[in-house]
Amino acid sequence: MQELLHWFQHLSVVIESGAVLAGALSGLLAAAHKRLDLVGVFTVAFLTAFGGGTLRDLLLDQRPFFWVEHQHWLWVLLILCLLAVLFMRQRHFAPTERAMQWPDALGLGLFAAIGVSKALAVGMPELVAVLMGVVTGVFGGVLRDVVCNEIPSAFNDHKPYAICAFVGGWVYVGWWHWSGSSEQAMLLCVVVTFGLRALALWRNWVVPPWKI
Amino acid sequence: MQELLHWFQHLSVVIESGAVLAGALSGLLAAAHKRLDLVGVFTVAFLTAFGGGTLRDLLLDQRPFFWVEHQHWLWVLLILCLLAVLFMRQRHFAPTERAMQWPDALGLGLFAAIGVSKALAVGMPELVAVLMGVVTGVFGGVLRDVVCNEIPSAFNDHKPYAICAFVGGWVYVGWWHWSGSSEQAMLLCVVVTFGLRALALWRNWVVPPWKI
Amino acid sequence: MQELLHWFQHLSVVIESGAVLAGALSGLLAAAHKRLDLVGVFTVAFLTAFGGGTLRDLLLDQRPFFWVEHQHWLWVLLILCLLAVLFMRQRHFAPTERAMQWPDALGLGLFAAIGVSKALAVGMPELVAVLMGVVTGVFGGVLRDVVCNEIPSAFNDHKPYAICAFVGGWVYVGWWHWSGSSEQAMLLCVVVTFGLRALALWRNWVVPPWKI
Repeated sequence: MQELLHWFQHLSVVIESGAVLAGALSGLLAAAHKRLDLVGVFTVAFLTAFGGGTLRDLLLDQRPFFWVEHQHWLWVLLILCLLAVLFMRQRHFAPTERAMQWPDALGLGLFAAIGVSKALAVGMPELVAVLMGVVTGVFGGVLRDVVCNEIPSAFNDHKPYAICAFVGGWVYVGWWHWSGSSEQAMLLCVVVTFGLRALALWRNWVVPPWKI
Repeated sequence: MQELLHWFQHLSVVIESGAVLAGALSGLLAAAHKRLDLVGVFTVAFLTAFGGGTLRDLLLDQRPFFWVEHQHWLWVLLILCLLAVLFMRQRHFAPTERAMQWPDALGLGLFAAIGVSKALAVGMPELVAVLMGVVTGVFGGVLRDVVCNEIPSAFNDHKPYAICAFVGGWVYVGWWHWSGSSEQAMLLCVVVTFGLRALALWRNWVVPPWKI
Repeated sequence: MQELLHWFQHLSVVIESGAVLAGALSGLLAAAHKRLDLVGVFTVAFLTAFGGGTLRDLLLDQRPFFWVEHQHWLWVLLILCLLAVLFMRQRHFAPTERAMQWPDALGLGLFAAIGVSKALAVGMPELVAVLMGVVTGVFGGVLRDVVCNEIPSAFNDHKPYAICAFVGGWVYVGWWHWSGSSEQAMLLCVVVTFGLRALALWRNWVVPPWKI
C-alpha cells in the first residue's frame, strides 16, 4: 500500500495536468462550437478548467486559488487558446472530444478527491464535504454551459457524471473514518469515481428519466 | 406584543421550514419542466431554496452558510428530489405550484427579514441592508432561472415580488430606528412583505410596463 | 508629470462617475430591449455598473465593495432606472447607446487600472493582476448578458474590448516595475486602454475569427 501511495503522489501531478488540460479543451471546444472569439475561448476554457475549484474555495472561504498558486497554468491556457484559434479546424473537434473522455474521467476523480479533502480539512460536515467534491468536479462544466447559454449538460444528459463523484466522495469519507488515512481515502476515491465513470461510458449507462 | 414575539419565535421554525420547502419545490418543478435529471433537479432545488441566502453570505463575507449549519436540510432536499423523480407526474405540477404560493409568500417575508437583520448586524448602510433582504428573498429564484436558461421571472413577469421585500425591508429599518427592537422590526417586516405579496396575488397587481 | 497626476486625480472622480453611469445605462438599455420590469432593469444596471468590481473583490477577498462604500451610487441607479421606465422610449435607445461609447471606453481604462492596482496591492502575481483588471472592466457586461439570457457580447462580437484592457494592464505592470510609481502606471494604463479602444471603435478593428 505504501508503495502504491508513493506511486500515486508522483502520478497525481500527471493526473492533475491531464485533468486541467481536459477541462480546458472541453471548454475550448464548447466555445468553438459557439464561434466565440479569443476572449470568449480563453474565458470558457478557464471556467471549465478552474471554475469548480474556484467556486469551492469561494464557498469554503479558502485562498489562494489553484490558478493563483500555479500561475503557469494560466500561461498554458492562454497559449493553448491562441493556438486553437489559429490552427484548429472543424475536423479536429470530434477526435479531440473523444480523446478527452479519459483524462476527463480521471480528472473527475481527482477533483472530487481534492474537494472532499479540502472541505473535511476545514471542518465541514460529511454530506457538505461530499457535495464540495461534486462541485469541484462538475461545476466547471456547469459554468461553461451557463456562459455558452445552454442548460448545463451535467443536469440533463441523464448520464452518470456527478453521481460517480458523489459515490466516490462517500467512499472517501467512509474509508477515512475507518482507517484514519486521508491519503488512502483519496486514492480510493479517485479509483472508485474513475471506475464508475469509465463503466458508465463503456456500458452507456443512463439515469432513469422522469415518467411524465 | 411580548406574547406575539414569543409566538413568532416558535412560529418562525415552521415558517422557515415552509419557506425552504417552497423554494425547493419551486426549483424542483422548474427542473421538471426542463426534463432535467436527478442531479439537475437537486441542484436547481438547492439553488432556489438556499441560493439567495448563500449569495448574501458570500457578499457579506459571513459563514457558516445555512445549509452547512443545518445539514439535515440537504438530506431532506435529496430525498424530496429522489421521490419527485420517482413518483411525480405531470398532473401534480399545477396543483403543487398553486399550493406553494402561500408558503412562498411567507418565505419571501421571512427571508427578507433575515437578510436585513444580518446585513445590519455587520454594519451595512441601510439601503444596502434592504437590498440584502431582497437578495435573500429573490435571488434563489433568479439563480434557478439562469441555470434553467430562462430570463429570471423576477425580472420580467411584471408582478410585485422583489418590490414587496423592498418595502418590507424599509419597514424593518424604520421600525428598528424608531423602537430599537430588532425582533419587533423583523416581525413587522414579515407581516408587511407577506401582506403586500398576498394582496398582489389576490388583486392581480402588475408593475407598470415600458411604454415603448 | 506631477501636474498631470494632480490633474488626473481630480479628473478621476469625473471619469469614475462617467464609467459607472455608462455601465448603468448600458445595462438599462439591455434590460429595456428584453422588456424587463423595474426590478430587472435595476438589477441588470447594477450588475453592469458594479458586477466586474464586485466579482474582483470576491475573488481577492476584499471588502467593502464600491457600492457599499459609495452608497449614494445605489440611489442614483434607483432613480435613473425609475426615470428610464417612466420616460424612456424606443427612439432614445440608439442615440443613448452611441453617446455611451466614449465614457464606456474611458471607464474600461479606469476600471482596468483600478483592478490591476488592487490586485497588485494584495500581492497577486502579475498575470493574475492583469486578468483582475480585465475582469473589473469586462465582467459587468458579461453578467448583464448572462442574466439577459444572451451569450456575452464580450466573448463573441470579435471586437477588441477585453484585449485593450489586457494590453493596458501589462503597460501598468511594466511601467510600475520600471518606475516604481503606481500613480504614473495607473495613468498610463488608462491612456493606453482608452486609446486602443478608441482606435478599435474608430477604425472598426476586428479580432480574427475561427477558420472553421
